[in-house]
Amino acid sequence: MAKSFSPPLFSETEQNNTKELRPRFNAAGLITVITQDASTNEVLMLAWMNEQALAKTIKTGKATYWSRSRKKLWVKGATSGNTQQVVEMRVDCDQDAILMKVNQTGGACHTHRQSCFYREIAGQRLLKESETG
Amino acid sequence: MAKSFSPPLFSETEQNNTKELRPRFNAAGLITVITQDASTNEVLMLAWMNEQALAKTIKTGKATYWSRSRKKLWVKGATSGNTQQVVEMRVDCDQDAILMKVNQTGGACHTHRQSCFYREIAGQRLLKESETG
Repeated sequence: MAKSFSPPLFSETEQNNTKELRPRFNAAGLITVITQDASTNEVLMLAWMNEQALAKTIKTGKATYWSRSRKKLWVKGATSGNTQQVVEMRVDCDQDAILMKVNQTGGACHTHRQSCFYREIAGQRLLKESETG
Repeated sequence: MAKSFSPPLFSETEQNNTKELRPRFNAAGLITVITQDASTNEVLMLAWMNEQALAKTIKTGKATYWSRSRKKLWVKGATSGNTQQVVEMRVDCDQDAILMKVNQTGGACHTHRQSCFYREIAGQRLLKESETG
């Protein structure tokens, strides 16, 4: 497959300042994606994209991830109907993480909750359920 | 070093439902951390914690990460003064990601910007600077 993106720049300062999208995929060819509700700013989930998923998400405006467990592209909501329409995408300073703001239909979590982050850490060993962000 | 945390549960459903903190560290012993401004919900940065950093953050309430480049614990702001006081911590469904809401002093990004996500993706190849979330 032809490369969809230019490689990261060698100099960290240049990578921080460039106006070119030069995503830094990890050794497994993946980049971390934080997905945030565009209207409330609630963080919905953390997932991964490979080069193809990132290119497809930018092109279609429909959140498309790489499923590490199923080892395939995963158009969010293709099965559940809980789609994510992309409103905005950002990269971080060294371009090894994506922040994506979406209009979420239904719950983002596979447990049917709005967000995957439905449990608060309550000390070294305990969690408490506390769904709303 | 004694283990600070119990291991993940074998069953995914149990891991999704347990009220015990059972963080799932990756093969490198790290867990992904999303850091969000507690007052605005702006996502400030994405970073990593090892077991020790997570235990220390829970205990002290001061955001402490594992620096992958420097290969050492990194109390955020120890050098820059740009500390993060933890307000709330959450885990996601399978407990391989942490969401942390903080009171941020100064900028969170090493480029001195408020957030690391200061560039918007504007097509397949281009970015535009757009600091405010």
